[in-house]
Amino acid sequence: MAAVASDPTPLIHSGGGGGGGGSESVRPTLPDSLHVNSGDGAYSYTRNSYYQKLGANAVKGRIEGAITMKLDVEKFCSRSNIIRMADFGCAVGPNTFDTMQDILHYIQQKYSLQCPESDKTVEFLVFFNDQRSNDFNTLFTSLPRDTPYFAAGVPGSFHRRLFPESSIHLAHCSYALHWLSGVPEELLDRNSSAWNKGRIHYTNAPNEVVRAYAARFAKDMSDFLSARATEIVHGGMMILIVPGIPNEMSYSQLAASAMYKHMASSFLDMAHEGLISEDEVDSFNLPIYTPSPEEMEAAVEKNGQFGIEILELTSNPDSLIDGRVDMEGWVSHVRAANEGMFVKHFGGDVIDEMFDRVTKKLFMFSEQVNSAYKDLTQLLVVLTRK
Amino acid sequence: MAAVASDPTPLIHSGGGGGGGGSESVRPTLPDSLHVNSGDGAYSYTRNSYYQKLGANAVKGRIEGAITMKLDVEKFCSRSNIIRMADFGCAVGPNTFDTMQDILHYIQQKYSLQCPESDKTVEFLVFFNDQRSNDFNTLFTSLPRDTPYFAAGVPGSFHRRLFPESSIHLAHCSYALHWLSGVPEELLDRNSSAWNKGRIHYTNAPNEVVRAYAARFAKDMSDFLSARATEIVHGGMMILIVPGIPNEMSYSQLAASAMYKHMASSFLDMAHEGLISEDEVDSFNLPIYTPSPEEMEAAVEKNGQFGIEILELTSNPDSLIDGRVDMEGWVSHVRAANEGMFVKHFGGDVIDEMFDRVTKKLFMFSEQVNSAYKDLTQLLVVLTRK
Repeated sequence: MAAVASDPTPLIHSGGGGGGGGSESVRPTLPDSLHVNSGDGAYSYTRNSYYQKLGANAVKGRIEGAITMKLDVEKFCSRSNIIRMADFGCAVGPNTFDTMQDILHYIQQKYSLQCPESDKTVEFLVFFNDQRSNDFNTLFTSLPRDTPYFAAGVPGSFHRRLFPESSIHLAHCSYALHWLSGVPEELLDRNSSAWNKGRIHYTNAPNEVVRAYAARFAKDMSDFLSARATEIVHGGMMILIVPGIPNEMSYSQLAASAMYKHMASSFLDMAHEGLISEDEVDSFNLPIYTPSPEEMEAAVEKNGQFGIEILELTSNPDSLIDGRVDMEGWVSHVRAANEGMFVKHFGGDVIDEMFDRVTKKLFMFSEQVNSAYKDLTQLLVVLTRK
Repeated sequence: MAAVASDPTPLIHSGGGGGGGGSESVRPTLPDSLHVNSGDGAYSYTRNSYYQKLGANAVKGRIEGAITMKLDVEKFCSRSNIIRMADFGCAVGPNTFDTMQDILHYIQQKYSLQCPESDKTVEFLVFFNDQRSNDFNTLFTSLPRDTPYFAAGVPGSFHRRLFPESSIHLAHCSYALHWLSGVPEELLDRNSSAWNKGRIHYTNAPNEVVRAYAARFAKDMSDFLSARATEIVHGGMMILIVPGIPNEMSYSQLAASAMYKHMASSFLDMAHEGLISEDEVDSFNLPIYTPSPEEMEAAVEKNGQFGIEILELTSNPDSLIDGRVDMEGWVSHVRAANEGMFVKHFGGDVIDEMFDRVTKKLFMFSEQVNSAYKDLTQLLVVLTRK
């Protein structure tokens, strides 16, 4: 699942984790670079998104439970023979296909439980959403044959309306909401106390920078929830999987922060060597935010149209494994998700160099990475439309 | 409008015409080559499909009339706030956007007529369908901003089900149905009387070849109508625009036949010069069929689930203009639509050569082209679901 992997939760050998997801910018700051790598080459998202899948797998049981306990499928089917599902920030596959198929199966299962005698044929329509610049050609050509659902692709930012009113029964969004709709403007303003000189993220940044990011996330969540509240039928369900951070924890305590820190320092090294300019580094910021449960809850409460069924931090599956971070796999995943944005800003020539340097730095500081916090860094949210 | 332009109705200077449209093969004969040229280069469909638009423009008034007189929009709106439309064989744009917007406008107009006092907000969802291999990336990135509808792309052959039961209010398919789901097998069988040696189409071919094409068209129409009958709501409407031919007329009487004849003879010349093999020519056939009103009516009657509101041959707009055929424009349009199939079979190296030769031959035989039949060569069909 996940339009743009990004939150760089480190990957453990034979474990999973990693981040992804994204959406089209509705503001002018980040136009078409916010999409995962296309095609199926070495750094493609198709070949570098299995960690996101493991992340989703870790909460499958919880999702099955929520659907079984809380989704009134019988009520939907009494009104129509059609169940409509949507995956927001679906990227290019393959994770989205597995997840939608699993959820469809849970819904069918629940219907059999509720109406064991029914011989009604319920049909499913699954919408795969991502921003316009997503590689829908790859998505469509890799769509499995003979799916038990009808499939459609929906291009556009999920921060605005994408579907008619009350037309979606189940919404899903995995590793996508942490992508902001754009970079907070004040980060680029030399006269602002939130000017983010020498960094590409809010890790290890002054409070003003962190607050600018947090405010943008709150606004984006507000737009997202408000659009979905209109589109989802009463009694419908929304499942969100987002990279998360414990309440009150600073981002720099996360193992993931090493990725952004070393990216910034690699770029700065390259600027000092004249490969790029320092201005280019100062004017680049990743529009990625990792919310805490408190922040997520506040957004849902403020919107007011959803009930919270589940809102909890969960373990990344890799944190359960007694292994060490797979630095190269981690870098490949982050690259598959984020390369487009780097290329857009810095040009394609210096990107290999940057990722090489980052990989070396991560190896050099591997003890720090391995001892940093990486336990409860995934947020699972299940909401029902009131 | 039109997944793959094909029926090569010749183009008149400052006039229109031409063909297009297509669908994914559901049989194994024609896998991924059945799609129009991608992108926006010199031979792209995007830049070579305005003749199809003129063809559609010629019947706009008839379509507006049919919607105004025969579509009970009030009934749809009394059940739901959502009107769902689908364009089958939409290609990469831009024609499909204009057409869907026009039809949406006629439906809104009809609703205002029926319910002048209503303050209900009716929302539109428009599905753009074409085969999986269609360039949906170009379609989505060129989708106009701020459309008065929600948009979705639907990949897959329109010879099978693509939507849930009773979920579409208005279906549209322009310059697409003349594309067969595959080449009739007997054309490739040296032992069959329908072996189509030395030709690439049924023009100037023995009756057995013509009958094999006609039978495949009848089967494809049966599949198409049966899938759409399930998907379209009772009282819903389907609009089909197809290249057509008067009852009892032989294809060789059409000006369009010159294109196929000269393509075949160009390929044969190239075979004699050793550029390609004769076997390659013998084993290539364009899966394109131009039905008569009688054949179309028979298909609708056999299906039995649609009432016929309009079924008539209409003039191509170019036939109304006192001009001569624009040979180069015509060849470009046919190329934009069909090149993929030629490249797949003959390889990319010889295609420029073939189109150059065809253009020269068309100029050489321009009197024949200009004096051949090109008047009533577009079939307009408007059906309502019983």
